[in-house]
Amino acid sequence: MTEEKIGRTELVVDPFHTDFAGRLNYGTLGKHLLNSAENHASERGFGMKMLNEANYTWVLSRLAIEMYEMPKVYDKFCIDTWIEDVYRLFCDRNFCIRGENGKVFGYARSIWAMINYDNREPIDLHEVHGQNMDRYICGEENCPVEKQGKVRRLSDDKLVRNLTIRYSDIDYNGHVNSIKYIEHICDLFPLDKYRHENVRRIEMAYMAESYIGDTLSFFVEEKEKDVYHIEVRKNVLENVSKGESVVRCRLVFE
Amino acid sequence: MTEEKIGRTELVVDPFHTDFAGRLNYGTLGKHLLNSAENHASERGFGMKMLNEANYTWVLSRLAIEMYEMPKVYDKFCIDTWIEDVYRLFCDRNFCIRGENGKVFGYARSIWAMINYDNREPIDLHEVHGQNMDRYICGEENCPVEKQGKVRRLSDDKLVRNLTIRYSDIDYNGHVNSIKYIEHICDLFPLDKYRHENVRRIEMAYMAESYIGDTLSFFVEEKEKDVYHIEVRKNVLENVSKGESVVRCRLVFE
Repeated sequence: MTEEKIGRTELVVDPFHTDFAGRLNYGTLGKHLLNSAENHASERGFGMKMLNEANYTWVLSRLAIEMYEMPKVYDKFCIDTWIEDVYRLFCDRNFCIRGENGKVFGYARSIWAMINYDNREPIDLHEVHGQNMDRYICGEENCPVEKQGKVRRLSDDKLVRNLTIRYSDIDYNGHVNSIKYIEHICDLFPLDKYRHENVRRIEMAYMAESYIGDTLSFFVEEKEKDVYHIEVRKNVLENVSKGESVVRCRLVFE
Repeated sequence: MTEEKIGRTELVVDPFHTDFAGRLNYGTLGKHLLNSAENHASERGFGMKMLNEANYTWVLSRLAIEMYEMPKVYDKFCIDTWIEDVYRLFCDRNFCIRGENGKVFGYARSIWAMINYDNREPIDLHEVHGQNMDRYICGEENCPVEKQGKVRRLSDDKLVRNLTIRYSDIDYNGHVNSIKYIEHICDLFPLDKYRHENVRRIEMAYMAESYIGDTLSFFVEEKEKDVYHIEVRKNVLENVSKGESVVRCRLVFE
């Protein structure tokens, strides 16, 4: 068990993990963030592996990624992650994505809850972990990007795509993987947009889980130039206004 | 430049790179194979990075993966890759996927061509590389899985899904990524099938490229119990028998 508060994962942008323009894609970056979080946690005694044995698991509640620049094919980079704070039901975890010579590519903020694997009810973090998580709270590291804002329910006429959940959407937690939503959201925009613009910031609020057999509906509204609000509802079927919000997202191009 | 004929990549099954059952997913495994091939090539002077500068690139023509067992979440594994032979227009590259203590999880065979990035015409490997690739041909390592067989065009009534190509399908080569086809093919089968069965073997023949704006149509036929032939055609539109074969695949469950 390490005493270090910050965990570091060293990575390289493999050529088959980029988009057409050679930029690391958000799907791969997102999975790297989640894996680095899990490695940090498991090296400190509260990773998913131990939790699964106790029938608990971590679920991602909020994720905001802001990239000043995306690493390009063959770039070396690292992800530093640390715990900013621990509350009764949530844990705030931050990330810094750095290149060689300490160059900062971007930051990410995330909020996690722990749930019972079977009944999906939240677990009191202090009850389960006592002071074990608190002693890793890191005050020294800075995450100078904004906390995420609120995205409201969009109007029904903003529906742009329906999608059936398939095998590859589902992860080890038995629900649609949180990063898969990001990939599906990025896929709502035409490739041409990515020729001239980058995704500068993406904010994800995970409001409910979705499972195999569910249908996802994607609603998109451009709130101001290049700032998009996106809502994902499940099982709207014939009555579009009835579906439950699964994900709400704010996406900023530049 | 290394003299070693075999290149090794050390990996671990990250929890967000598995399917719902904790098995490494074929999409992630496939990308690891491609990345390990590229690393092996670039360390020996014929990787995509150098080729791109000369306006050439590697394209995958055939890929067969046979897994006796899939690595599970948190398993350490490595991918060994080596060149079996170099012909005028093709290069045969093999892979072995090993776990700890030398346990063999499976093997893969691949056939690659080099093309001109602009006109997509094939390049004579001996003309470009002289003896440089030949000196890495490795006769010592064994790849004891069958070469892939031929899959014929399927009849038009086997159509099961149409799909529009989106941003995340396209890779650095500007076409639909060869591994993305595997993900889409695995997604043709219901999740329930994966509860009781594993994909034992997958054979891919890449016959043409597809690009943004193309529509892909997937045809599936069960030839014998748990042996599926799959054909992907592009732009069949209103006349299903007219579309060009992009990919043909043989998939074996067990």
